[in-house]
Amino acid sequence: MTDEIKEKYLGKPINCLDKGFVRLVDIMGDDSAIVQAARVSYGAGTKSVNEDEGLIRYLIRHRHTSPFEMVEYKFHIKLPIFIARQWIRHRTANVNEYSGRYSEMKDEFYIPDIDQIRTQSSLNKQGRSEERLNSESAATIASMLNVSQRHLYEEYLYYLEQNTAREIARINLPLSTYTEWYWKIDLHNLFHFLELRLDSHAQYEIRIYADKIAEIVKACNPLAWQAYEDYVLNGITFSRQELNLLKDVTKDFAFEPEVLKTYGLSGLEAREFKIKLEKMYE
Amino acid sequence: MTDEIKEKYLGKPINCLDKGFVRLVDIMGDDSAIVQAARVSYGAGTKSVNEDEGLIRYLIRHRHTSPFEMVEYKFHIKLPIFIARQWIRHRTANVNEYSGRYSEMKDEFYIPDIDQIRTQSSLNKQGRSEERLNSESAATIASMLNVSQRHLYEEYLYYLEQNTAREIARINLPLSTYTEWYWKIDLHNLFHFLELRLDSHAQYEIRIYADKIAEIVKACNPLAWQAYEDYVLNGITFSRQELNLLKDVTKDFAFEPEVLKTYGLSGLEAREFKIKLEKMYE
Amino acid sequence: MTDEIKEKYLGKPINCLDKGFVRLVDIMGDDSAIVQAARVSYGAGTKSVNEDEGLIRYLIRHRHTSPFEMVEYKFHIKLPIFIARQWIRHRTANVNEYSGRYSEMKDEFYIPDIDQIRTQSSLNKQGRSEERLNSESAATIASMLNVSQRHLYEEYLYYLEQNTAREIARINLPLSTYTEWYWKIDLHNLFHFLELRLDSHAQYEIRIYADKIAEIVKACNPLAWQAYEDYVLNGITFSRQELNLLKDVTKDFAFEPEVLKTYGLSGLEAREFKIKLEKMYE
Amino acid sequence: MTDEIKEKYLGKPINCLDKGFVRLVDIMGDDSAIVQAARVSYGAGTKSVNEDEGLIRYLIRHRHTSPFEMVEYKFHIKLPIFIARQWIRHRTANVNEYSGRYSEMKDEFYIPDIDQIRTQSSLNKQGRSEERLNSESAATIASMLNVSQRHLYEEYLYYLEQNTAREIARINLPLSTYTEWYWKIDLHNLFHFLELRLDSHAQYEIRIYADKIAEIVKACNPLAWQAYEDYVLNGITFSRQELNLLKDVTKDFAFEPEVLKTYGLSGLEAREFKIKLEKMYE
Repeated sequence: MTDEIKEKYLGKPINCLDKGFVRLVDIMGDDSAIVQAARVSYGAGTKSVNEDEGLIRYLIRHRHTSPFEMVEYKFHIKLPIFIARQWIRHRTANVNEYSGRYSEMKDEFYIPDIDQIRTQSSLNKQGRSEERLNSESAATIASMLNVSQRHLYEEYLYYLEQNTAREIARINLPLSTYTEWYWKIDLHNLFHFLELRLDSHAQYEIRIYADKIAEIVKACNPLAWQAYEDYVLNGITFSRQELNLLKDVTKDFAFEPEVLKTYGLSGLEAREFKIKLEKMYE
Repeated sequence: MTDEIKEKYLGKPINCLDKGFVRLVDIMGDDSAIVQAARVSYGAGTKSVNEDEGLIRYLIRHRHTSPFEMVEYKFHIKLPIFIARQWIRHRTANVNEYSGRYSEMKDEFYIPDIDQIRTQSSLNKQGRSEERLNSESAATIASMLNVSQRHLYEEYLYYLEQNTAREIARINLPLSTYTEWYWKIDLHNLFHFLELRLDSHAQYEIRIYADKIAEIVKACNPLAWQAYEDYVLNGITFSRQELNLLKDVTKDFAFEPEVLKTYGLSGLEAREFKIKLEKMYE
Repeated sequence: MTDEIKEKYLGKPINCLDKGFVRLVDIMGDDSAIVQAARVSYGAGTKSVNEDEGLIRYLIRHRHTSPFEMVEYKFHIKLPIFIARQWIRHRTANVNEYSGRYSEMKDEFYIPDIDQIRTQSSLNKQGRSEERLNSESAATIASMLNVSQRHLYEEYLYYLEQNTAREIARINLPLSTYTEWYWKIDLHNLFHFLELRLDSHAQYEIRIYADKIAEIVKACNPLAWQAYEDYVLNGITFSRQELNLLKDVTKDFAFEPEVLKTYGLSGLEAREFKIKLEKMYE
Repeated sequence: MTDEIKEKYLGKPINCLDKGFVRLVDIMGDDSAIVQAARVSYGAGTKSVNEDEGLIRYLIRHRHTSPFEMVEYKFHIKLPIFIARQWIRHRTANVNEYSGRYSEMKDEFYIPDIDQIRTQSSLNKQGRSEERLNSESAATIASMLNVSQRHLYEEYLYYLEQNTAREIARINLPLSTYTEWYWKIDLHNLFHFLELRLDSHAQYEIRIYADKIAEIVKACNPLAWQAYEDYVLNGITFSRQELNLLKDVTKDFAFEPEVLKTYGLSGLEAREFKIKLEKMYE
């Protein structure tokens, strides 16, 4: 990680949604830390940057994931509780969350942008569609959300004034309440988090956070990110049935080395592509 | 696990709080499964029940935890979201939770008993005190909680009627909303969960669940439970400073074997107690 | 799991290599347990077997992995130490291993079949080639392995006779020594283990064990296994570069619904295939 | 971590056993990182160093372990395989090990010091006693170990010369062969590792490594280490039975505040000691 990147990201909150943020607190290891760990397994010294890139791409392609666990990220994140509940399902991470038992909850709640107040998707049973509610309805809903949030927070303050224990007073606060936490995770598990949370099936609100984290990872581990993008994010897995179809569609095409080359497939990658074709045609 | 215990617990919901429950769905392994796994390490065949008990107690005392991982519990649990958020922090478990993105949330909310609406503890910064609010205030608060829950659920239904995506419609539901999940965990990690959640510092509401789970474990793994109770739950750890004091207070007492015996300390346990004393007196 | 399958597998060792085995000790949950857990998330009751199969296939396709964690397998396995060292790298499992500190190691060592004593692969830096050593050399090596194993075990016995502590006496035993353990793992993580250990890059000796475990899983969770085979084991992931090539090769083909149907792609699966194509062509 | 400590430890191998080492490769977070994470939960800003120490001691005492997970250590370690096999049982860590499939194993083997070649302990079934073999026997054994290691390595080289695949050639190398790995772990889990591996029941050879790691942690996280030593390493846990005895022995002693003070127990710690006594006397 160059000083420039540190300067740009370290300690700087990046806004997410209406009141949230992602802030890079600390990082252990850049791309060379991945290479360094991999070379322990292979028993060889560090080579040129060019070879580093090739090695990192090889590791991602072959899912040799352990060297990516040698890089560790720590973030400070502020997010609505309903997002926190999805996020925490990723168990291979360390978390310290703000506690409503120890401390008074703050008067901060998420309200979606009008154009994110959308109809239920009929295709995607878990998500919203591309279609907005009519703007009047959406505005009404945004306003209702806000009014109830105000009301619930006032009740919360009233309970505290009565000296009700904080752990009880907070039970009617809504899932839209903002919380915050420190979140520490290694790069392999962060890639897995991003794969699921950058996906179009993920809830819009968590995708916003995933986008910002992706931007940070891209800056801090550029070689690992590029390989991850080429082989994982932008890769597609076909099922046996789909491959049977693709096999028949492509069977008359000769995958000549020079053709492969024009697509960036030469050397080991060309050989591996041939192996995939053999698997497809077998 | 005898048929009688199966009959009593398997599939039967045990009520918790006003609308929640714990239900044992499945279990893999009784006390003999712990012994069986331990005996792989020790390379010996299964012995008498009496020796099983001794072995299990030895394992707990010496924190040989891996044989307890060979027993697995699966529960179906219905609980308020603010409790679910504490619960999920135990990462070494498997969870399938009801999803407010896929399904409509039900009209079920937690309201504390009047006598659980207590003042903030001044000693325990995270919890409630032993002192109730005056009953009028408490009744008012319970009523306010209920009114807001009704109101929020009606708004939720209104949002759905407008065809708002479920994943948005639910964001103002309160933390007191009931959710449910399947939760699967091995006995070692369950013991750790119980140690933290039976503790007086745990929030009252999660302790209620821990109590019911403890009852089930006590019935299904009686030998393991008894050892866990004697050595872990009812054990006390003293710090170096405290031990220096206890050392001086006890230094004139001769810990004779026959005295130890009257306290149930003989054989290996007596020898281990002597080793602790030596460590204390060194 | 039907009684027939129980009868066939439960408690019965399946031979692996020259002296090892895999033995199914216990299992929690069949295919219906996966469906049961998934239906908690989706908030619906259990449906017909047909719908169960569709749901399980959907879950695997969309990598909704948590319901597969609700099934738990326990095996008793006897294996050479160099394989145990690869195996143990799968951290999300429970293990109780025979201990050379507590117990005397047995006189059991692995010797490869003559036709598995092969030359180093030049393509696959981590493995053996398809080519055998000439049979005389291979026989010599097998014999040398055996002679040294005999010698080392005699030395081991000599050390023990001198009353050397077991934990020291065993340090020169070879990596080919057999050990055994209880190994407990949930189905999601077992699938991941199998994906890596059934792969042609895995060492031959661990693949033998993976094959036997696969046979057991196929019998005990047939619907989950079939989906896993179609979408994961027999699926192929193409990189961005490879997809660019496939795109150009397939661009003139009209993927008509009736064509898709002949490949078993209809309904949701056809729609999902279309989405993949769109991603490929974008 | 001050520059002085960095200078002293970072990248410098510390010798362990005859040919091994521990080398600190990288570290994320000093004591202030623990405090920083804890203060997120408590919702308060950073205070004076004095308060930092109090907070860290409070966290350890009350087993609030998550803030200690916010510190991460990365080590490069060279160790005999039989120790590596014990070490790897700590699953909550990241590992990249030298691979005998990819690379040729080196000619390096562990031979115990003469005075560590001891008799089997009769008390501790898993370990050696305090008693050495007579020096002649011990010298003979050391010499036999060495001769066999030489012989096995020569056979290994012979197998490689025959172009046998590395993954097969290495199977008769002894458990005393040195391997190396990168090992990354958070401070909470490192404390747990040290608790088990500094213990007198741990094998001597792994304790040597644990000692060196402890030295590094003590330098890099001095406040956390001191608290860990006072409350965990030097603490003693008594069972219910033992407490019944201690209760009767200490029952006539008045634990006055001024007495407690002379043992360093005042304020919150004195109050907590009183609570333990109450639990003991109940």
